[in-house]
Amino acid sequence: MTQTTMGHYLWQRLKQMGIRYVFGVPGDFNLQLLEQLSEVDGIEFVGTCNELNAAYAADGYARSNGIAALITTYGVGDLSALCGVAGSFAEHIPVVMISGVPPMYAIRNRLQLHHTMAEGNFDNVRTALKQFTLTDACLTPANASQEIDRALNYCWQERCPVYLQVPSNLSYLEIKTNDVPITRAPAGFDSRQQQSAMGAIQAKFAKAKRPVMLIDMDAERAQISDQLQQLADRYNIPYASFLTGKAILDETSPLWLGYYPASAESSLSQWLNQADLILATAPCYQEGSPIAVGLPTEQTIYLQGFEVTIAGDVYEGVNAQVLLDSMLEQGLTCTHRSDHPKPPSRRGATYQAQQPLRHEQLWPQIGQYFRGTDIVIGENGCANIALQTLPFPKGCHYIAQPIWGSIGFTLPALLGSMLAQPSKRHWLFIGDGSFQMTAQELSTLLQRGLKPVIVLLNNAGYTIERYIFGKQARYNDIAQWNYQALLDALAPNIRVNYQKVNTHEELAQTLDALTNEQATFIEIQLDPLDAPARLQQFGASFAEFDYGPRGPQHPKKTT
Amino acid sequence: MTQTTMGHYLWQRLKQMGIRYVFGVPGDFNLQLLEQLSEVDGIEFVGTCNELNAAYAADGYARSNGIAALITTYGVGDLSALCGVAGSFAEHIPVVMISGVPPMYAIRNRLQLHHTMAEGNFDNVRTALKQFTLTDACLTPANASQEIDRALNYCWQERCPVYLQVPSNLSYLEIKTNDVPITRAPAGFDSRQQQSAMGAIQAKFAKAKRPVMLIDMDAERAQISDQLQQLADRYNIPYASFLTGKAILDETSPLWLGYYPASAESSLSQWLNQADLILATAPCYQEGSPIAVGLPTEQTIYLQGFEVTIAGDVYEGVNAQVLLDSMLEQGLTCTHRSDHPKPPSRRGATYQAQQPLRHEQLWPQIGQYFRGTDIVIGENGCANIALQTLPFPKGCHYIAQPIWGSIGFTLPALLGSMLAQPSKRHWLFIGDGSFQMTAQELSTLLQRGLKPVIVLLNNAGYTIERYIFGKQARYNDIAQWNYQALLDALAPNIRVNYQKVNTHEELAQTLDALTNEQATFIEIQLDPLDAPARLQQFGASFAEFDYGPRGPQHPKKTT
Repeated sequence: MTQTTMGHYLWQRLKQMGIRYVFGVPGDFNLQLLEQLSEVDGIEFVGTCNELNAAYAADGYARSNGIAALITTYGVGDLSALCGVAGSFAEHIPVVMISGVPPMYAIRNRLQLHHTMAEGNFDNVRTALKQFTLTDACLTPANASQEIDRALNYCWQERCPVYLQVPSNLSYLEIKTNDVPITRAPAGFDSRQQQSAMGAIQAKFAKAKRPVMLIDMDAERAQISDQLQQLADRYNIPYASFLTGKAILDETSPLWLGYYPASAESSLSQWLNQADLILATAPCYQEGSPIAVGLPTEQTIYLQGFEVTIAGDVYEGVNAQVLLDSMLEQGLTCTHRSDHPKPPSRRGATYQAQQPLRHEQLWPQIGQYFRGTDIVIGENGCANIALQTLPFPKGCHYIAQPIWGSIGFTLPALLGSMLAQPSKRHWLFIGDGSFQMTAQELSTLLQRGLKPVIVLLNNAGYTIERYIFGKQARYNDIAQWNYQALLDALAPNIRVNYQKVNTHEELAQTLDALTNEQATFIEIQLDPLDAPARLQQFGASFAEFDYGPRGPQHPKKTT
Repeated sequence: MTQTTMGHYLWQRLKQMGIRYVFGVPGDFNLQLLEQLSEVDGIEFVGTCNELNAAYAADGYARSNGIAALITTYGVGDLSALCGVAGSFAEHIPVVMISGVPPMYAIRNRLQLHHTMAEGNFDNVRTALKQFTLTDACLTPANASQEIDRALNYCWQERCPVYLQVPSNLSYLEIKTNDVPITRAPAGFDSRQQQSAMGAIQAKFAKAKRPVMLIDMDAERAQISDQLQQLADRYNIPYASFLTGKAILDETSPLWLGYYPASAESSLSQWLNQADLILATAPCYQEGSPIAVGLPTEQTIYLQGFEVTIAGDVYEGVNAQVLLDSMLEQGLTCTHRSDHPKPPSRRGATYQAQQPLRHEQLWPQIGQYFRGTDIVIGENGCANIALQTLPFPKGCHYIAQPIWGSIGFTLPALLGSMLAQPSKRHWLFIGDGSFQMTAQELSTLLQRGLKPVIVLLNNAGYTIERYIFGKQARYNDIAQWNYQALLDALAPNIRVNYQKVNTHEELAQTLDALTNEQATFIEIQLDPLDAPARLQQFGASFAEFDYGPRGPQHPKKTT
């Protein structure tokens, strides 16, 4: 045990976890922490325009870096960031949220402060944050080193945000510290459970004639994507992805069956109906998905980070990562048939060069330009829905927020992801309604010299809402902006390749000419009611779900 | 009792309370409510760029209209708006927050939905909102009319936000309704308590030789400003304002003593020390104020909305508005001296026309242009601190958020206040750091044809934080924007009078030429370390408060 200050210890531990950037906004209760951050080499503050954007940026950074940190000031900062933190909680993204809070004596004596309700209550903010974080602590010199380490381990191992309050008058105090560096250690597990789960899985595979793997987002969160791909490749196991598990496994493989759920007539659905073993990892989202009615219990293995359910029998206390590693080491005995369906054919890009851009032809055209080293980010709405079923090249990574679905998330997330993976080309596809939510963060992104390809789908409003309800309604319209002027406004001295494209030919010319010399901003003008076919279907089914079969979406049925 | 739908009843009740605009963002769980809103004449949806901005706009609308409403969609919308709602709670601003939430059957069956944690928990969002609202309810056909009326009465009478959840599949169902229109009725009270409180106050005044009134923001919230002014004028009672109670009473009156707290040598402090009766209404904020050590109990009457404390004796169950009305009707017997100090002299604007603008001379120059019918909005930081002590003409109204202090609040609040008081000229003074937080809302403001005078104090960062800690630190710097281009970007077809001014002469020319023909945006370039003198002192005292007397703001004292 040696001595260091609370603040320095915190930043050093975050750095040891591989966090290079901390997103946030300064405020009087966190300035001393920011000063300490500036004193630690190899970890750096990235000021964003507001705290919600900081939370989104941290989430994006964690998705491409593994784990992230966010710093806010008490009350105003915490609550402004909350929607972003809740998104990380919903989507299992590890973010350490650090709040500079009032001095301990003010909390203890319930002083009436600014950034509070001025009535001496310091529980309300923490209670609100508790709802959307895995664990929380208010650091003191007595508890700091153990609480910091505990929170960081939790955050990493359980892939969820955690919340640490640092009273402003304590972070310069010395604390006893743990000298062993903290690492991204896997969570512990029970070896006998693990062994017995593995035996049960091996037995299932040994008997299976028609096995299949179904991949959802938590496979990536549990960091088992590589092992699952190896398992599929080595044992010739076909696989499909949930729409929310897009591009986690290779979509160009002959083992690839397509996106789940699929239509009843699809070869995927038919294969699944006949499957005698489904390794599912692990659907965490049911609404609008047939998983709501369940996969067949007897045939299904649900694999989660710390839990496997095999034919209804739950094995707690396992570690999926270690389990898959051992399974790959020990090997499977497989006797299954190899007559699984062929991969879905890839539709070539066909379009009429002079025609105005429409969703139907737009996405196949764009998809041709994706490379296996790209990161593609799809905002909720038209972009995500179109990208979810657009075939990606092998290795091309996809970021979206399909569960929490907070529009505006992706622009700051792009900032975060690019800082984590600066050598990867990043694409962002975003509608104008979403873009306007968090538009100012383009400033931080461009002024840091980052060079993404941003494709703005300008359809003058919330087209996803239009297809749910209010197709012609004014409440689904938004203001038109001049996006070229916006680039000048937010990054006055940065050259950005701005292109407004109306036809497929113009788009092709723009995409053909892409370089990594500068950021590119492509504005695509779309009809407000043009939308991907899946969004149109999805909108109608959402209306049924939300308003009921006698809801106002059926005018004649309402009273 | 007649029948109408839940949604229509809600909007009609809000309209009866005098709400003309409802701020918010559409989402699938609230589209049916927005449709119903569009069907009720005389109340209108104002879509903002994001939900936090909607909450700030609603707060600003309530400050100038009396009460406001906000509509969000479940989860993402609620949490995005939360910081703004908490601000309304801290500052006692009545805002009805309406959330379109998932269909009742989904809540009841704990379905795993988008905009939730996808684990069937629908309590977390409501728990978070509960911390910062006075009351909340999830509407059902059985409870809707009584819960709506209860929440609206609470909101109005207690001047605090309330939270109503409307399940998306219920708002088109018919409910039994209350036919008596809802009004801005004052809260009930106990007549004997009221009578006895009034007697005690009258007795205090009858004996007082040196009475004084001390006004804080809750006087305005309790809507007793007019009565207090009448009381002062009729009985020649001198008065001072808390800094947080700026411009509630006439600052040009001979009874005006200045801003409290004041320096020990000031005539106000000396008069207060000799005062034998202090009518204080009602300090709700203590940090950084001598009220923390208390006014003398025996001599002080604390008057709050529903409570009077007279020489330490608490009278619950009164209604300050009714109490003051009766007091004005019955009259006071006053025998006090009239040798109170003269009003503080108004410093004329003196400046060297060709010199770069500096805070010291800037504010008196600007103050000359305020009219008694203007509304002035001061963002936290330099603007609010300078404006708090700038003498205002009689009737000129001031809006700020000194307790919650969430930067970025004022730009959307300007939108709200202007919609409430379109005939009043509005000024907004805001630093660049605050402006960038919520900048996109300029789009809504300008594109609706509103014509404020916005003065942007461009000092390349958070100068208030610089004076607390990190004077030269990079974490207190922000990106430079081109604000003229921003106007083109956010309101492409609106003519805005943009002026960049560097000298007092340029500022004078710009202010002399102001018209109400178009919006004006004045960008003032300031040195990053130029700040009002009070902010410089305030910064140092905040650092002592936050980091302690051995904190890092004293480099030699730290280890």
